[in-house]
Amino acid sequence: METVDLYLHNAEQVVTCASGAPRRGPTMAEAAVIENGAVAVSAGRIVAVGTTDDLQGRFAPRRTIDCRGRSVCPGFVDAHTHTVFGGDRAAEFELRIKGASYLEIMAAGGGIVSTVRYTRAASMSELESAACKRLDEMLALGTTTVEIKTGYGLSVSDELKMLQVIERLDQNHPCDIVPTFLGAHAVPPEFDGDSEAYTRCVIDKILPEVADWYKTSRFAERGVSMYIDVFCEDHAFDLNQSRRVLEAGIESGFRAKMHVDQFNDFGGVATALELDAASVDHLDVTGPEAIASLAQSDTIAVLLPAVNFNLGLTNYADARTMMDSGAVVALATDLNPGSAPCPSMPAVMAIACRYQRFTPAEALHASTINGACAIGQGDETGSIEAGKRADILILSEGDYRHIPYFFGSNPVHTVIKNGQVLDP
Amino acid sequence: METVDLYLHNAEQVVTCASGAPRRGPTMAEAAVIENGAVAVSAGRIVAVGTTDDLQGRFAPRRTIDCRGRSVCPGFVDAHTHTVFGGDRAAEFELRIKGASYLEIMAAGGGIVSTVRYTRAASMSELESAACKRLDEMLALGTTTVEIKTGYGLSVSDELKMLQVIERLDQNHPCDIVPTFLGAHAVPPEFDGDSEAYTRCVIDKILPEVADWYKTSRFAERGVSMYIDVFCEDHAFDLNQSRRVLEAGIESGFRAKMHVDQFNDFGGVATALELDAASVDHLDVTGPEAIASLAQSDTIAVLLPAVNFNLGLTNYADARTMMDSGAVVALATDLNPGSAPCPSMPAVMAIACRYQRFTPAEALHASTINGACAIGQGDETGSIEAGKRADILILSEGDYRHIPYFFGSNPVHTVIKNGQVLDP
Repeated sequence: METVDLYLHNAEQVVTCASGAPRRGPTMAEAAVIENGAVAVSAGRIVAVGTTDDLQGRFAPRRTIDCRGRSVCPGFVDAHTHTVFGGDRAAEFELRIKGASYLEIMAAGGGIVSTVRYTRAASMSELESAACKRLDEMLALGTTTVEIKTGYGLSVSDELKMLQVIERLDQNHPCDIVPTFLGAHAVPPEFDGDSEAYTRCVIDKILPEVADWYKTSRFAERGVSMYIDVFCEDHAFDLNQSRRVLEAGIESGFRAKMHVDQFNDFGGVATALELDAASVDHLDVTGPEAIASLAQSDTIAVLLPAVNFNLGLTNYADARTMMDSGAVVALATDLNPGSAPCPSMPAVMAIACRYQRFTPAEALHASTINGACAIGQGDETGSIEAGKRADILILSEGDYRHIPYFFGSNPVHTVIKNGQVLDP
Repeated sequence: METVDLYLHNAEQVVTCASGAPRRGPTMAEAAVIENGAVAVSAGRIVAVGTTDDLQGRFAPRRTIDCRGRSVCPGFVDAHTHTVFGGDRAAEFELRIKGASYLEIMAAGGGIVSTVRYTRAASMSELESAACKRLDEMLALGTTTVEIKTGYGLSVSDELKMLQVIERLDQNHPCDIVPTFLGAHAVPPEFDGDSEAYTRCVIDKILPEVADWYKTSRFAERGVSMYIDVFCEDHAFDLNQSRRVLEAGIESGFRAKMHVDQFNDFGGVATALELDAASVDHLDVTGPEAIASLAQSDTIAVLLPAVNFNLGLTNYADARTMMDSGAVVALATDLNPGSAPCPSMPAVMAIACRYQRFTPAEALHASTINGACAIGQGDETGSIEAGKRADILILSEGDYRHIPYFFGSNPVHTVIKNGQVLDP
């Protein structure tokens, strides 16, 4: 008998989400459910998964958890967040209720720029401890891997400060982190609306420093890719500026991501596909032609419905057409203090099932394996398969469909991160 | 110095929600915030509330909690729930995503009637333990007082079984419970769609037994009122049947509540006002005339936006007009396995702020003092005032607006129920 660290058995369901590639088309709709399932874990990795009968007697575990009455699924992967930021925007939230629109608030110097002021003013340890609290909440809600973007610094020193905080979080917090450089998030106040001058600053001044920093960071050391992202939208960066930023990032060895089609369709999807972007994110107003081209590509559509909910909108990205035409779709929180103050992947799945007609299986795949693939972690996490990181959730209920069905509470009973049981 | 059991101090905000009557008009919009606040508690009751400076040195507490960086508000009152039920409806949730409407599912023998089958088949202790788990979640999310309806029994013995479970919960769970008889919730299968015959059964057979039961229940003993409710809607009970059920309940000494205008406006508000109902609930399609008459009355509009969200709807009750015209508005979850599988008052507030334009202050009043008044508990709970039950929340953040602003996680750090600190 093989000695292992941890053995889960008698689970009503083990939903593996296993897949050699991101799930799309028929594999997106169909959940791989092992009834009366078991999982063996050693040295932080999954050793075996199967029925309890199959695995019975094969392992001598140091710790056993009886999952009777419960189900098991992979830890969630949140592939688009702005988890590091200073301050909050509760006052702006109240203003918006009283009638101001998101673009109006941005135009009036609020919005992202107000968070830039707070983030610049904060020390690294202030930023780290606030972000750490958020990651604690995310982890308790089942998220075990998190992409985090810069983009509230918008100067060489402040973007590097954010990256150092992101690196510290990866080192000190149980969650695994993937970093993205989003210098082109907003035009900082000192550029007085001159997005062209700031675009040049991102490309010529900030990016080279970021590329240097990455080379000696723990991310490079551990083989975790870095991404370059841009917010292609009114009051942010136009399509030409966006392309130049992404091309420069790609030259520096980063892979591209792009915030596109949140409010206005500038043709960002076509540009992103030309650049072989890892993902295009938001897609709230993306039309059928761009969806058809996405479906022919390996670029992942990362949908962020917590934003639409948070802004009180009734339009959502056309996920049904995307999934039905075979595009690869992922879900993420977009956690940020303005448009998505939401750390919860279960809340995102609850919204997606109700307003975008994701089935529970599709929502789960979008939040695990497809999210992992959107940030280059598809070989490491996002499914319960031998060899992968043991990022595993034990759910309170025996049917995984309860994750989006019951909403407003936490469906996760126990989180297992890199094989460590985080006892509730 | 007066010896007290518990002393909270240094709270960034104590939001008292104090009010001699339900809040409406200008008192609904304006939060009573004590900065650097303190609360003293003894024998399960609030003894004093004021600034930390005012209360300093007046009390010798057995336990002190420093609330620096946190805020304090009353426990939430959930004034409309169906917390006791058998089974779940996760499969129906998936069906609905695939296109079936709520009324179609009801017409096909699913919906409420499927929960009736499970509830009838369940033992009292099965029902109690499932409901207890739900109340645990609700309490952790800040709800300290809960109305619970019958209505999944629909026969003398099964309705009494539900009431006995509700009584046991009141006895065994920290939450305080208020019972409502909702025999006229749906027409049970054995009546084969004959709502008139079943209406007579409710009035002539079930209600008299319920009235007898109430007289010797712990609710009567403790002076907690009992309510009679009816679901006035297509596939349920028409206006004439609804009126007869409520009148019979009123004759038995109960106060009226009424599910009205969820999908169709049958004129239920006018009937409810004639009967001096404690509340009218749902109101999703209520028009301006009925809202104007509500505003002239003391009947409370209990809004249930988690239902609209859960059903993926984009229309919501016109809360803004109701509040602006001076009607008394409360919020509740409607927790039930079909149309609102949601135990969370913070989630309800998050939806209400975004889709019904409640301000954070209005959402808080609707979830505390106004909810308490909707179930006859306005003198006992719903605000932080000397003499009331010590049902108090310590929030993780220093600004109460974070309750609806950050969504998908639990804003409550510590719950204090009847003066007992439920340590996290």
